[in-house]
Amino acid sequence: MNKVNLDEKLALFDDHWSPKIVAKLNDYDIQVAKAQGEFVWHEHADTDEFFLVLKGRLVIQMRDGDVELGPGELFVVPKGVEHCPLASDDLEVLLIEPSGTVNTGSTGGDLTAVKASI
Amino acid sequence: MNKVNLDEKLALFDDHWSPKIVAKLNDYDIQVAKAQGEFVWHEHADTDEFFLVLKGRLVIQMRDGDVELGPGELFVVPKGVEHCPLASDDLEVLLIEPSGTVNTGSTGGDLTAVKASI
Repeated sequence: MNKVNLDEKLALFDDHWSPKIVAKLNDYDIQVAKAQGEFVWHEHADTDEFFLVLKGRLVIQMRDGDVELGPGELFVVPKGVEHCPLASDDLEVLLIEPSGTVNTGSTGGDLTAVKASI
Repeated sequence: MNKVNLDEKLALFDDHWSPKIVAKLNDYDIQVAKAQGEFVWHEHADTDEFFLVLKGRLVIQMRDGDVELGPGELFVVPKGVEHCPLASDDLEVLLIEPSGTVNTGSTGGDLTAVKASI
């Protein structure tokens, strides 16, 4: 029954593209992440994915056009839509998706993260 | 495929305790709300409820103790836990819960809101 202070959680780590679980909402993970540069093109066949920018800028590249987010802006990538996040150097983001969702979706590879709770 | 700017959405309304849907995440509603003062004691038997304070302060009163949130702080009220939000005069909050969740839970009454998308 503890609250989560997002800045305090974000101060606990420095790695990029490696979401940390800070809370659970039913069977969803509430996560924070830091990122820099370009991720990989991927899709999630079974779920939407929620992004809320806390700091910095995030371009969510999609095949039909990009969405650019700054602090206080959110976007939900629809399930099955291929996307590739592109982050400013100081990006901090809140991510929400069902527990067990793989960050690299069906693409896999070296950027696939094991999500830990902090 | 439009992004959501939370400040822009919050500028569109002034009523209290009446969440507005700004996006969908699978079968969950992403909502913003303004509030002032005390809500009603209620519980959601079937779901957790996510609160992230954007502005102001929110005390989530529970029978076993309170949680007080400021901007950048979140809390998930576990399902079945009776709670009564108490808001500062300028509270703005991001709420996430399954679509169809009634804001007053099993308590009902005059504060029960019909949730509209904005």
